Amino acid sequence: MTIKLSGTESVQKFFHEASGLNNDQGSPRMKQLVNRILMDTIRIIEDLEVTTEEFWKAVDYLNRMGARGEAGLLVAGLGLEHYLDLLLDAQDEAAGLTGGTPRTIEGPLYVAGAPLSEGETRMDDGTDPGTPMFLQGRVVDSEGQPIAGAIVDLWHANTKGTYSYFDTTQSEYNLRRRIVTDAEGRYRARSIVPSGYGCPPDGTTQEVLNLLGRHGNRPAHIHFFISAPGYRHLTTQINLSGDEYLWDDFAYATRDGLVGEVRFGENLHGVEGRVAEIDFSFQLQKAQSSAQEIIRDRVRAEA
Amino acid sequence: MTIKLSGTESVQKFFHEASGLNNDQGSPRMKQLVNRILMDTIRIIEDLEVTTEEFWKAVDYLNRMGARGEAGLLVAGLGLEHYLDLLLDAQDEAAGLTGGTPRTIEGPLYVAGAPLSEGETRMDDGTDPGTPMFLQGRVVDSEGQPIAGAIVDLWHANTKGTYSYFDTTQSEYNLRRRIVTDAEGRYRARSIVPSGYGCPPDGTTQEVLNLLGRHGNRPAHIHFFISAPGYRHLTTQINLSGDEYLWDDFAYATRDGLVGEVRFGENLHGVEGRVAEIDFSFQLQKAQSSAQEIIRDRVRAEA
Repeated sequence: MTIKLSGTESVQKFFHEASGLNNDQGSPRMKQLVNRILMDTIRIIEDLEVTTEEFWKAVDYLNRMGARGEAGLLVAGLGLEHYLDLLLDAQDEAAGLTGGTPRTIEGPLYVAGAPLSEGETRMDDGTDPGTPMFLQGRVVDSEGQPIAGAIVDLWHANTKGTYSYFDTTQSEYNLRRRIVTDAEGRYRARSIVPSGYGCPPDGTTQEVLNLLGRHGNRPAHIHFFISAPGYRHLTTQINLSGDEYLWDDFAYATRDGLVGEVRFGENLHGVEGRVAEIDFSFQLQKAQSSAQEIIRDRVRAEA
Repeated sequence: MTIKLSGTESVQKFFHEASGLNNDQGSPRMKQLVNRILMDTIRIIEDLEVTTEEFWKAVDYLNRMGARGEAGLLVAGLGLEHYLDLLLDAQDEAAGLTGGTPRTIEGPLYVAGAPLSEGETRMDDGTDPGTPMFLQGRVVDSEGQPIAGAIVDLWHANTKGTYSYFDTTQSEYNLRRRIVTDAEGRYRARSIVPSGYGCPPDGTTQEVLNLLGRHGNRPAHIHFFISAPGYRHLTTQINLSGDEYLWDDFAYATRDGLVGEVRFGENLHGVEGRVAEIDFSFQLQKAQSSAQEIIRDRVRAEA
């Protein structure tokens, strides 16, 4: 039988107190959020007749997920991070802020403080036998004019699909760099072609995806933060053409306008053998306020 | 401005797919639960205009909470564990299963496999200078007849309010025992009077409670699992009379019928000086099925 207590005055009063709404201390905003979350939680329990066994499995899951630090990966895999992009897009559109390179998810694997170079850099430490990749492009404004002095902060996986810092077998800041654009708004990077990312197969995100009948793979991609004084901070990615997961990304990051066309050639840029080239330019919106110039707060790793 | 996407067909379709509802693999139950949780989550984001900063703080919180293994403590502190008792009580009442000692929350600090004794035991290892406590009582059926061979599985904190296993400075299974009732249904334990429990002050549960303007203290108490063939498993607690938090328990475990009256005396039971005595008996309901005889599944520690 279905018993519902969420509509009773006594249970509403109970969670009102548990949320601290009957005292004057603490944070009114937190109380409002917690009360809503608690009431929605018990409505889920009642509507879907969640058993105590299911409830405690969920509690155990949260402990195991956090112990692995996979909360950021799970919210990407369940589409919540992409949803936030959709919401920001809709807010922008309502405010008349359109145009420029689309945003897409940051993902949980950024590390702050990567080495900074002027104009060009090499990103790989030479130990990964991946195909050399020559990436270049420009940062421009809404009229297509170059933005000099923009910072292109980029990071990507190695040929095993893993990221330095989180993969402790890689050297510090391997495949992570910041490049200041030159007078023509140009950045250039030599690196290696990344492989697609896959969720750790023994992790808690993949555990949920398996239960949802879903895979945990991403296409090969390169992450970017682009910033410049007077322009809106841009968080985005290039997803590489030809990858089988290009439009089947478990994290829903691939978007129109964010596919990077990879050209393969031989003996280019002074490198013998097979070489990849990608040209990709970024168009920034003018900032309406200085707050728009900086990245949105999020707890991030710093090596 | 408030933008709402949760009502749009495209976002509903997106989360339908993210929940795996468009594929035939995995678990239909998990898909149903995840889809409901996702849709409720985005409605909370929209209704309360949750910022990206707040969203990422929550994600970081989940990682930190899990890293400390505090999910079970948080659901106790937010009242969800007590709510499950209210729901089970209401289900029992609707099914005509009434009477006996009330259930109350288990909490997250049980450890399976404590030493088993016949009739009586000593629970403390002699290192804690707490007041000696002599606890005794009976396990009886709905007619008040003794239940011989019942297992009284009990655990409590030391005078610092901490529990063995989780507090690794205590000896193995200190203050944790299982006692088999004798022919008169009796159990007897010598231990020390526990102190009340307080949430770790540097932990993630206390962090939320502070924001809710709430304390994180429990009255001194003793946990019990009582089981016997043919009877419903009982999870309950004795909360000790006279404690300042007796009716102000952050985990809402104190209930009518679960207050243990502590009598203090001198030079009793062959012990010199101040001694505490508690008599507490448990009345079990007859089991309607063998499933009711055993404890509900939950991931528990085992030393």
